[in-house]
Amino acid sequence: MTAEGLPMTVPAQDLPDRVRIHEVGARDGLQNEKSAVPTEVKAEFIRRLADAGLTTIEATSFVHPAWVPQLADAEDLFPQVADLPVALPVLVPNQRGLDRALALGARRVAVFASATESFAKANLNRTLDESLAVFEPVVRRAKDEGVQVRGYVSMCFGDPWEGAVPLHQVVRVCRALRDMGCDELSLGDTIGVATPGHVLELLSLLNEEGVPTNVLGVHFHDTYGQALANTYAALEHGVTTVDASAGGLGGCPYAKSATGNLATEDLVWMLHGLGIDTGVDLGRLVATSAWMADQLGRPSPSRTVRALSHKDQ
Amino acid sequence: MTAEGLPMTVPAQDLPDRVRIHEVGARDGLQNEKSAVPTEVKAEFIRRLADAGLTTIEATSFVHPAWVPQLADAEDLFPQVADLPVALPVLVPNQRGLDRALALGARRVAVFASATESFAKANLNRTLDESLAVFEPVVRRAKDEGVQVRGYVSMCFGDPWEGAVPLHQVVRVCRALRDMGCDELSLGDTIGVATPGHVLELLSLLNEEGVPTNVLGVHFHDTYGQALANTYAALEHGVTTVDASAGGLGGCPYAKSATGNLATEDLVWMLHGLGIDTGVDLGRLVATSAWMADQLGRPSPSRTVRALSHKDQ
Repeated sequence: MTAEGLPMTVPAQDLPDRVRIHEVGARDGLQNEKSAVPTEVKAEFIRRLADAGLTTIEATSFVHPAWVPQLADAEDLFPQVADLPVALPVLVPNQRGLDRALALGARRVAVFASATESFAKANLNRTLDESLAVFEPVVRRAKDEGVQVRGYVSMCFGDPWEGAVPLHQVVRVCRALRDMGCDELSLGDTIGVATPGHVLELLSLLNEEGVPTNVLGVHFHDTYGQALANTYAALEHGVTTVDASAGGLGGCPYAKSATGNLATEDLVWMLHGLGIDTGVDLGRLVATSAWMADQLGRPSPSRTVRALSHKDQ
Repeated sequence: MTAEGLPMTVPAQDLPDRVRIHEVGARDGLQNEKSAVPTEVKAEFIRRLADAGLTTIEATSFVHPAWVPQLADAEDLFPQVADLPVALPVLVPNQRGLDRALALGARRVAVFASATESFAKANLNRTLDESLAVFEPVVRRAKDEGVQVRGYVSMCFGDPWEGAVPLHQVVRVCRALRDMGCDELSLGDTIGVATPGHVLELLSLLNEEGVPTNVLGVHFHDTYGQALANTYAALEHGVTTVDASAGGLGGCPYAKSATGNLATEDLVWMLHGLGIDTGVDLGRLVATSAWMADQLGRPSPSRTVRALSHKDQ
């Protein structure tokens, strides 16, 4: 479909020179897959992602196997990829999960918090403060072990039960996670409703309240098609960590091939067009996502994957 | 999927207060449909779009029926919608097309130029300068009749044969169309490869070369998922006319439901989140696109339509 030399590289003013992509396809992308994906396929997926130049690849979750059956093979999977020369964060819901991750030598972990009471209740069956209290010893122990900790904050821009989420409430949760010792926070638009002004306002308020941009990542979903515009606004604010999912894996449960997560390829297309370094080889990444789509038996929701893998046919 | 009050309205600095959406679904969106869409369905589509608050609705094309069979009913269709209280531009490829449009009372027309030799050759079988020479008397006569003229400039950001398109070449075509008398230009990213820095650079260069922002519209395709991020960049530059297609109609020929045009609903979601007035009722627009998707027998590629029409089920 496209000729060589596209996208044309034309930098915009005041954007970062480099962006670190936090690749979530193997964990966030796969966790809602109904059919079990073989552990070997997951390991191969992660290896191919690393080979495509991604340097931070969230590998799996040490959640209780009954909660997320798709990731019940974490103990088998992690050692198969542990020697890759990339960062391999893993999700840990509690102390037990952290124990399992540490026992396998994980050096980066992530906790998954909520910005709203409703989602804390639905996802963790706890109040917001109770859930933060559960994370505190997890984060402290990880830090004592010299392990880097990321704090996911979900529902930062809207909640399916509550609707709009007050900004000060998001800030409160972010500050609590920072105070515990989280090295990095990922601001999640779990239902994909954010727009650029909302993103900029939250980032500014976090800065004012003592949370600097360099510890913030953004995690946008494309449910309403807003993910890349929101990312661009975040880059303008100075954000340099962006979460994305190879091939756009992690679809909404209600529509085949409807996207959930921002597709890494669509992000890379924009960043490379802007002259922003990612270290990613887009061709290899597209090939990886096309391969994974074959494994899952349905087309990738990433528009760039569709456009470029068509070209190769 | 979403609760009330979403998206939250949070304006960003230095954006326009109001954006005029140039709705292209009925013309650009339908023209590549293989099966003939009944004229009554097209008329009803346009009526519903007007009822949803769109004020500029490109209705059809007075191209030779053999070229675009789907729009061969222009003479039947136009009178059915001509009394709607909205602007109804129509495409005219040449003097004959202009004659037909004027005979029916059209008060706005558009010509369709190319920024590249390859596309001029492929689309019109003429050189770039020959194609501009064909448009000149068309534009002059339309202006003499007091009719507003829009000039589409396709392949502004990339061309499937030539790859990257030199900016000065795009500027040359834009200036030529302005010099002929075009009131407005629509900068088309026909193959969807642009990124925000590229958009900003072209807009700046056009301004420097005497083409002001207030005569420029942007027309992005979502082939690589970039359309809304590019639109946001254009808004930051001061652009207030944005082309979009209800439901994202106008898919790429190679993939069912793959999007071509920016979906009007995804655009409206962003604009309303930014507090930018459009006059559009998003709920009515979504219902219109869901209805049209039923007529065409396949789901809308607009993410907002999918998300919100699911909610209504």
